[in-house]
Amino acid sequence: MYLLHKGHVMEKNIHRVVLDAMGGDFAPHAAVEGAVLACRHYPVHITLVGNRESIMPHLRRLGAASGMPITVHHTSQIIDMGDNPLDVVRKKKDSSIRVGLELLHDNKGDAFVSAGNSGAVASGSLFVLKRISGIDRPAIAAVLPTLSGRVVVADTGAGSAVKSFNLVQFAIMASAYSSRYLNCKKPRVGLLSNGSEDSKGTDIIREAHGLLKNSSLNYVGYVEGRDVFRSAADVVVCDGFTGNVLLKVAEGVAESFAAALKQESKKDLFSMIGALLSKKSFARLRQRFDYAEYGGAPLLGVTAPVIICHGRSNAQAVKNAVKAAMDYSVSNVVSHIQHDLEINRDLQSVGRKPSFIKRMLHDMYGKRD
Amino acid sequence: MYLLHKGHVMEKNIHRVVLDAMGGDFAPHAAVEGAVLACRHYPVHITLVGNRESIMPHLRRLGAASGMPITVHHTSQIIDMGDNPLDVVRKKKDSSIRVGLELLHDNKGDAFVSAGNSGAVASGSLFVLKRISGIDRPAIAAVLPTLSGRVVVADTGAGSAVKSFNLVQFAIMASAYSSRYLNCKKPRVGLLSNGSEDSKGTDIIREAHGLLKNSSLNYVGYVEGRDVFRSAADVVVCDGFTGNVLLKVAEGVAESFAAALKQESKKDLFSMIGALLSKKSFARLRQRFDYAEYGGAPLLGVTAPVIICHGRSNAQAVKNAVKAAMDYSVSNVVSHIQHDLEINRDLQSVGRKPSFIKRMLHDMYGKRD
Repeated sequence: MYLLHKGHVMEKNIHRVVLDAMGGDFAPHAAVEGAVLACRHYPVHITLVGNRESIMPHLRRLGAASGMPITVHHTSQIIDMGDNPLDVVRKKKDSSIRVGLELLHDNKGDAFVSAGNSGAVASGSLFVLKRISGIDRPAIAAVLPTLSGRVVVADTGAGSAVKSFNLVQFAIMASAYSSRYLNCKKPRVGLLSNGSEDSKGTDIIREAHGLLKNSSLNYVGYVEGRDVFRSAADVVVCDGFTGNVLLKVAEGVAESFAAALKQESKKDLFSMIGALLSKKSFARLRQRFDYAEYGGAPLLGVTAPVIICHGRSNAQAVKNAVKAAMDYSVSNVVSHIQHDLEINRDLQSVGRKPSFIKRMLHDMYGKRD
Repeated sequence: MYLLHKGHVMEKNIHRVVLDAMGGDFAPHAAVEGAVLACRHYPVHITLVGNRESIMPHLRRLGAASGMPITVHHTSQIIDMGDNPLDVVRKKKDSSIRVGLELLHDNKGDAFVSAGNSGAVASGSLFVLKRISGIDRPAIAAVLPTLSGRVVVADTGAGSAVKSFNLVQFAIMASAYSSRYLNCKKPRVGLLSNGSEDSKGTDIIREAHGLLKNSSLNYVGYVEGRDVFRSAADVVVCDGFTGNVLLKVAEGVAESFAAALKQESKKDLFSMIGALLSKKSFARLRQRFDYAEYGGAPLLGVTAPVIICHGRSNAQAVKNAVKAAMDYSVSNVVSHIQHDLEINRDLQSVGRKPSFIKRMLHDMYGKRD
């Protein structure tokens, strides 16, 4: 380990964030610059994990090679976007994702942040940090802007094929996150479907709908894609594939709307002057719909705070993700999830098949009982 | 039948559209007003199917009770949004959807248009009109605005759970629709996924990905939610559940962006004046992102032209859907689909299990061969 900030005394209220320097489309410079920005704004110590030779020039360029609460932890391997997520477990044991998670596990940090391969971060987290007892699968919970506030969407990419009990667990976790992290009292939980009637949805969604009605959560029923942005619910639950589509469609439409606004503003003289005068309001609008403003998304369901950022994260987005990681690590979401799981324990067994080993044992010894 | 326009001689280039007057959130007035608007703009004869007592007051109010090429065909039943889609087949045989489809089947019209329960329109169409030979499941193909043009998304709601060969059929149908109806030469076909790498997607999507690579279509691979609006493909293929979410999220974001623009424009004096000057460009922007401008979506895969409109269709949207129906009925998409199915016949058998009866016959007689 290369201690950049010699003699830095760790104070009690200083957060320790482990940051993957090699993840994302603009690695390592976005991560390094984000780290420097974060250190200038917040009481945080950052461990940059990645190739030292790639990281140092950026730190020097930013005048942050010394005197900053930043440590570089060298690793030799990189997980690419095209890599199998399981490579982090099997092959690339000296990758920035794997090593960063191990630093978190060994209490060398309070939270881990990465803009890298989200599948690899998810499977690495399961392997290194383990699941919260009672959770079968983690979920990435994204926070999106709505007209009057924010909505938590989970899962947005940790996994694709789900069972109804996975969706129930996502609901419990995202509800805990919304209440503890976003201070939303009794979050209204909705299940994403293709209509509001009970008959809508797939078999799995209808089954989860029935389970959630009987849960302790503030379940408000099905929500449609349109309702997500109308604040019809504080939490929207879906499988990771659909959540990923939702997130990216929302981004795509917001981007193309902003671009179309620019195009249309240039088509006549009045509109051109109007656009000049509206500069401030257009900037506020862009900010409201800019993913970078919303920091990273937590990987809910593992025993320590992991924040996953957008692959396209710029320095500003990384800075916000570091802040999100700091807030998340003190929000106590994990114990809140454990508490809610306990209350809703009955729902957990529905739709669940006994494991292969249990079935085999039952087949072998079942009749003796 | 009540002929409103006595002595109306049907000319050869006049289209005959059968319109469900009872479907949609604003029935029957949106349908009736849309019919009147359409008749004033296009060479069309419209058969309004529905409750005559509900329809006539609106026709009178609009001064269209006589002298217009509009016929009212009375039906006594209504399919609600909450009804089981199969009610159109089993129980509600005198519903506007069922009767309208039968009029189309009996060649009393060239196309059928409905803003009602889309599941009921789909199952009614399968029952009354039958499938195109070689198609297992129909798809609703929506046309959405992108920054530089339009994109066809299929399926957006005819069914949820799909197999890989369904996705291949959707691709063939939507590609034919794009080339014949939107005059797109060699439409670029993309498969909606949660990433661009081959490893992304569900098992079914990966299987379809492999099949489409070997098809005669201009297949460009996976597209992500964000790419849909960046004109990365002319046709985007997905299951009906995901397509429905995509469509409604796009609408929701466009709506909330437009509303946020309004909010922000009121926050300072310059922006207020700017917004006044930008009135024209804002109006053009709204029009570009307004679903009503894009008419209805065809139900691809049945043997006659059926157009499904948004449940919230207003009169303008109905008018545009009538125009879409007129254009679709002369576009010859059906025979184009049949042609492309023939070319890609080999792909059709992959992932398909023999039917129960075939398997039974094989088990009984298979060994004798």
